[in-house]
Amino acid sequence: MTASVSQPLAVGLIGAGGMGTRHAVNLHRFVPGARVAAVYDLDADRAAHAAAQSGGGPVCDDPLQLIQDPAVDAVLIASPDDTHARLTLACLAAGKPVLCEKPLATGVADAAAVVEAEAALGRRLISVGFMRRFDAEHVAVRSAAHSGAIGAPLLFKGVHRNATAAFGVTGATILINSAGHDLDSARWMLSAEVAEVRVRGLRSRADLHADTRDLLAVELAFAGGALAVIEVFVNAGYGYEVTAELVCQSGTAVSQQPDRALVRAQGQRGFPVPSDWLSRFQEAYVIELTEWVASIREGRAFTGASAWDGLAAMTVTNACIQALTSGAVTPVQLPQRPGLYEPVNNAAAP
Amino acid sequence: MTASVSQPLAVGLIGAGGMGTRHAVNLHRFVPGARVAAVYDLDADRAAHAAAQSGGGPVCDDPLQLIQDPAVDAVLIASPDDTHARLTLACLAAGKPVLCEKPLATGVADAAAVVEAEAALGRRLISVGFMRRFDAEHVAVRSAAHSGAIGAPLLFKGVHRNATAAFGVTGATILINSAGHDLDSARWMLSAEVAEVRVRGLRSRADLHADTRDLLAVELAFAGGALAVIEVFVNAGYGYEVTAELVCQSGTAVSQQPDRALVRAQGQRGFPVPSDWLSRFQEAYVIELTEWVASIREGRAFTGASAWDGLAAMTVTNACIQALTSGAVTPVQLPQRPGLYEPVNNAAAP
Amino acid sequence: MTASVSQPLAVGLIGAGGMGTRHAVNLHRFVPGARVAAVYDLDADRAAHAAAQSGGGPVCDDPLQLIQDPAVDAVLIASPDDTHARLTLACLAAGKPVLCEKPLATGVADAAAVVEAEAALGRRLISVGFMRRFDAEHVAVRSAAHSGAIGAPLLFKGVHRNATAAFGVTGATILINSAGHDLDSARWMLSAEVAEVRVRGLRSRADLHADTRDLLAVELAFAGGALAVIEVFVNAGYGYEVTAELVCQSGTAVSQQPDRALVRAQGQRGFPVPSDWLSRFQEAYVIELTEWVASIREGRAFTGASAWDGLAAMTVTNACIQALTSGAVTPVQLPQRPGLYEPVNNAAAP
Amino acid sequence: MTASVSQPLAVGLIGAGGMGTRHAVNLHRFVPGARVAAVYDLDADRAAHAAAQSGGGPVCDDPLQLIQDPAVDAVLIASPDDTHARLTLACLAAGKPVLCEKPLATGVADAAAVVEAEAALGRRLISVGFMRRFDAEHVAVRSAAHSGAIGAPLLFKGVHRNATAAFGVTGATILINSAGHDLDSARWMLSAEVAEVRVRGLRSRADLHADTRDLLAVELAFAGGALAVIEVFVNAGYGYEVTAELVCQSGTAVSQQPDRALVRAQGQRGFPVPSDWLSRFQEAYVIELTEWVASIREGRAFTGASAWDGLAAMTVTNACIQALTSGAVTPVQLPQRPGLYEPVNNAAAP
Repeated sequence: MTASVSQPLAVGLIGAGGMGTRHAVNLHRFVPGARVAAVYDLDADRAAHAAAQSGGGPVCDDPLQLIQDPAVDAVLIASPDDTHARLTLACLAAGKPVLCEKPLATGVADAAAVVEAEAALGRRLISVGFMRRFDAEHVAVRSAAHSGAIGAPLLFKGVHRNATAAFGVTGATILINSAGHDLDSARWMLSAEVAEVRVRGLRSRADLHADTRDLLAVELAFAGGALAVIEVFVNAGYGYEVTAELVCQSGTAVSQQPDRALVRAQGQRGFPVPSDWLSRFQEAYVIELTEWVASIREGRAFTGASAWDGLAAMTVTNACIQALTSGAVTPVQLPQRPGLYEPVNNAAAP
Repeated sequence: MTASVSQPLAVGLIGAGGMGTRHAVNLHRFVPGARVAAVYDLDADRAAHAAAQSGGGPVCDDPLQLIQDPAVDAVLIASPDDTHARLTLACLAAGKPVLCEKPLATGVADAAAVVEAEAALGRRLISVGFMRRFDAEHVAVRSAAHSGAIGAPLLFKGVHRNATAAFGVTGATILINSAGHDLDSARWMLSAEVAEVRVRGLRSRADLHADTRDLLAVELAFAGGALAVIEVFVNAGYGYEVTAELVCQSGTAVSQQPDRALVRAQGQRGFPVPSDWLSRFQEAYVIELTEWVASIREGRAFTGASAWDGLAAMTVTNACIQALTSGAVTPVQLPQRPGLYEPVNNAAAP
Repeated sequence: MTASVSQPLAVGLIGAGGMGTRHAVNLHRFVPGARVAAVYDLDADRAAHAAAQSGGGPVCDDPLQLIQDPAVDAVLIASPDDTHARLTLACLAAGKPVLCEKPLATGVADAAAVVEAEAALGRRLISVGFMRRFDAEHVAVRSAAHSGAIGAPLLFKGVHRNATAAFGVTGATILINSAGHDLDSARWMLSAEVAEVRVRGLRSRADLHADTRDLLAVELAFAGGALAVIEVFVNAGYGYEVTAELVCQSGTAVSQQPDRALVRAQGQRGFPVPSDWLSRFQEAYVIELTEWVASIREGRAFTGASAWDGLAAMTVTNACIQALTSGAVTPVQLPQRPGLYEPVNNAAAP
Repeated sequence: MTASVSQPLAVGLIGAGGMGTRHAVNLHRFVPGARVAAVYDLDADRAAHAAAQSGGGPVCDDPLQLIQDPAVDAVLIASPDDTHARLTLACLAAGKPVLCEKPLATGVADAAAVVEAEAALGRRLISVGFMRRFDAEHVAVRSAAHSGAIGAPLLFKGVHRNATAAFGVTGATILINSAGHDLDSARWMLSAEVAEVRVRGLRSRADLHADTRDLLAVELAFAGGALAVIEVFVNAGYGYEVTAELVCQSGTAVSQQPDRALVRAQGQRGFPVPSDWLSRFQEAYVIELTEWVASIREGRAFTGASAWDGLAAMTVTNACIQALTSGAVTPVQLPQRPGLYEPVNNAAAP
């Protein structure tokens, strides 16, 4: 890592859509020790807009040039999913730390190639944007379970609801785009790998496409015996909500919603529900970036998800897609984990 | 029904263990229009004790005599499970209303025989003690979903945790004794019959018998397409807790715990958890008995569970036992529902 | 008390408005060991309606005759406030147990006369309808504090909100009709008598009468040093809500709302708020009547509020009315408590 | 403000106790655009420790030199209360922005002198550390009330509990050190000035000093008619907790505790209570510093508390001290507010 402590880390952003722009603004406003040094997007106007909102750095017209630019210390990838693997490999080639939005790749082979390349390089440069690992509520659940006070975790229960999805959304899309987070949460919370999966799906309304399965019940069995059940409902209507529970040997811990104020009005005592993940996980995104920048500046491993975690999530996702089609219990075949990915203490930074 | 309005209903109790004694005391202290008219238990001392606590009525030394006794208007069965079918049939033969604790029988054939006998008789005399149908929290969930305000129910999510179970408890015992309630809740909440089941089980602690499966994940698919996932954990350690949630097309309703006071003490803000179902469902037991007595006195159908519900629960339970052993998705084969059991409005009485 | 155990207690109802009719129906449907034996109301149609809904007993055209009727064992008074003292005295004269809705009288002198008459009689016949003493949430708060686990109570905090009040409602009316319950709660929770009061009031909206004070902050200081602060807001708009908290030496206990189901819908996670006290306290009214009937049938003291409690509440109310007018700290002058009212264990019956 | 956007703001810290060190570490780790440029503490070891934890900047042996040092752009004062006014005046003299921990001064005259000096200078350099104005829960309550959806605020209700206080703590100390925050919250939430106060106090345990008043009930009346009631209990035993509620014309908003996970264990469902304000308000302290730094770098007014707010809080505190002694309703005499302090939009920065 070449950035000296006295200079802010120069971060290049690839992809200036909603997520990328959010990252740029967060980096600029809330993350110490870093600055947005360059922005690329296929749409140059979008890139210019994100740059303007995050310190006014230069716009770049080629993502590979951005990666290779000596003025860029580290790279943040928030471009379309099918570019992730290729760009991440380019970062490896350039020897630059990279935080890649999930998924690491759109297929298992591509994700495996990234892992192999990093393992061959022999040092950890890749981080994957499973931001829930930095969400205070998720961290509290994992900490409560891992404290030993309620015994070993046996069962992970996840809930993931989106207000609405595109009309023709397929089960595969839901599994890749939404459930990926839950699959990572389950692995991270249980500290174990998935051995087999089963997925049931239903169509929530008769006016949706006949093949739509917008409510999924995902069931996981883990090496070591733990189980997981995950509800993913992308047309839940009322808003966006994520919950994680760990049922342990003598107690349970369940994440709360970050409700700030109870409001009483019009015959109701209630809490507003966020409309999407950007508002729900705003603090987690900031903590994730803060930890990523600090880990680079301090020359230590990122405490969040690694390329291995990205590959594992993709492999389980793939098995889930097959399982949804077949209706059958489907085994998950992970390659041997390279030694590079020996778990470090992956509690989130304080 | 022969009891005149001016005379309290004379109820004979068969079985004076914990549940039966609780029913007797509840009937005596909290239910208008009825009295405990006779008590039978294999253990005469136990019978005498229950009688003494519930108005001092006579003890009877034969359950069939109790059923036939002209001084007994209606019968409450809380004896061991394997006596339920036979005693219920005797009540039918005597033409007397009966509230039988669940399960209606210990096997599907026996339960089917009871249903057939009642159908042949052509009038509804049998009620089954699924008391959750009278629990204010469960009723509120079902009412919220059935109000139409959040769309049709799609997914039932149940949680059923006991503090501890006997050392050698088998999955079959858990499915019969504990999960029966949840299977009834799912059917009742979704107003549909189960088509197939899958059950996964795990052993929560290494010091339990190797064959023990004390944490079960039960998955149901319903005719019409709805789903259910139910956690049944009989060694949850921290206490007794039941939760029911209906995920609907545009919202969800989830039962709350009947927390009376929040207590702040010693670094904690919290609520006590009940130790067992008798305290958790005390009000539901009283409402159930009150409604049962009122339905008899008013000559109308009981709004709770029928013999058909008892048969359906037993049939699903049986399929679950097979599914736990085989690991496979297992179909549920219900007989044709006799016309006698056309659903009435089964909202609990106000 | 002359009612034999085998005969239901014959209760005469005086006053068949909303509250009286509710009591009659509750007695008929939910309270064992009693029946509605006669109903009086100035409006004979209303009396007939209440009688029809509660078992069809006879309507009576004179309240004093009802009290003296040998067919009436006990009397329930829910007539207008200014009749309470006179009718209660008539019950004393007839030697009949009476449950009088609060307030016991509309003035301190009248309430004191009732207490003196009962003390002269030398036995407790009068109960006062402070139903919160039987509300599960209130009982849990008091029990938690009195368990010793969180030290002695120091401060009572009450909240009492009504959705709307009549346009011209005066502070005095609020103090008599609404705050009376809170004053009793504070006394009961703290097991102490009020020594002085201060009341501040404000008008919640500019379109109310200039003299209206519909939001009151009532402050009490107790003999022994404990304090109370009570918010009474009769135009709170959003619904009806009551909360009671006891701040103790090492912890606090605060009543929860009886929320049955959490509903997620339309961008909100919330609970419905009851519109009035009849729905909020329905269970408490039933438990109160059940305990009242049981105490009479068992020949023991009622565990709820006594005539002394009624006099004390009225005396404090009166001081509050003066305090609201004067703005000053106002002492409360209670007479010597007759020995008849030595506290019994006033925990609510289980 | 002379710091260019490209250089981090150089912040000098005066006072390296618990609070000051926390600020230094927060600035170093979590606040972009700033660095700890110098640290002073009377105890040089403490200063060195804080400097080492926050980037290793130099230790300074004189606070006035630190203020005048051209290498220091802005000053953070967390030294003992009785130094606040003098040091803040020195910052004014040096023309440097300063964030002074509350209280602004230990007496009204000193606070007024600071306000006069800043008003004479004619530009806002002083910010006061009422960090609750940046707490997400407090902001949500204020926003809900100020949104107009529940009408105008009428009554502020505050709760402020500390686990334990020093043995001989006086009411005056509690009012200055603890209640100051609540007095500021009430003013900020109601957007109004306090007109009069009344304070009642009690001693929570017999083993405390006879003069101790460790539980205070503070009552405020505001210009414009709003009211406030505030409980301050510094020996609450169970932990640290702050709550703020605004009762408005048609609804209320009440702050929630930042509970991350519900834990079920050992017969209890509960949440841990923080032990002190540093953990409870960690996020608020970071947001406060982030906003302070951003406001300086952007050359605009800080959205938190001003010197005027510091003077107003001190004036109300002083009246409360008199009121606690006298028992009387005590008027609050504020000087004319200089035009410099016209309210800007003081919603916290997003």
